[in-house]
Amino acid sequence: VKLKIVWIGRTKEPAIQALTDEYLKRLSHYAEAEAGALKDESALLKLCGREARPVRHLLVLLDSSGKQFSSEEFAKFLGEHQDRSFQPLLFAIGAANGFTEAPREVATLILSLGKMTLAHELARVVLLEQLYRAFTILKRHPYHLGH
Amino acid sequence: VKLKIVWIGRTKEPAIQALTDEYLKRLSHYAEAEAGALKDESALLKLCGREARPVRHLLVLLDSSGKQFSSEEFAKFLGEHQDRSFQPLLFAIGAANGFTEAPREVATLILSLGKMTLAHELARVVLLEQLYRAFTILKRHPYHLGH
Repeated sequence: VKLKIVWIGRTKEPAIQALTDEYLKRLSHYAEAEAGALKDESALLKLCGREARPVRHLLVLLDSSGKQFSSEEFAKFLGEHQDRSFQPLLFAIGAANGFTEAPREVATLILSLGKMTLAHELARVVLLEQLYRAFTILKRHPYHLGH
Repeated sequence: VKLKIVWIGRTKEPAIQALTDEYLKRLSHYAEAEAGALKDESALLKLCGREARPVRHLLVLLDSSGKQFSSEEFAKFLGEHQDRSFQPLLFAIGAANGFTEAPREVATLILSLGKMTLAHELARVVLLEQLYRAFTILKRHPYHLGH
């Protein structure tokens, strides 16, 4: 499965960058994953609109009002996508003030990491850790059991 | 309000330590806050048992199966505690395999940061950011609005 994880706006915090790199490295043992900043929402929409070339991404937006999964349910969602589709999944984290309607309308899923409003830089690290955790669950690696 | 944030087991990851320090520093503008590692659950129970001296802490345990608050609801919980009680609040994050029954039985609240199982080191950073955010909500500081 191909994954792209993007966020709107750049990070100044080196600790966030270090954790982003760490979980992305772990995740890349299980999936083709790339991550990076996008300038704005239109850059995001270009990746998942009808005219997207060479391939149209399926968009998963992060928003605290979205659907919550347990880690096991999230692993199941990824596993089912992997079995069923060659389209890359694009996970997007908004800027501090969230997303407008346009990306919400094209999103396949609006995913919530919890009811609390998380600093968007932390949301990125939590999402990457959950993606990594999901693959360890699918591959029965003991990470999820606390080892 | 006095806050103590503890976790079972030490951290090796410098990026986690840097973020812990950063949010603790921000939090200390609003509350007397201290944070640190505890060796095990009995050290935790000593701080909130009936015999605790000089003061018994009110225990809030972190667990994904606990009660979820929005950031605004969490701010209200802290504000109400602040108005009503001089007892310090003790937030505790378990080791990778969570908590046993004993601390659950003495806990005032079992708090969930979301349905997903979060790496316990990340849970600490997310909790500290939510505590900081809660005080900015109570004090009407614009942080929560994304500034």
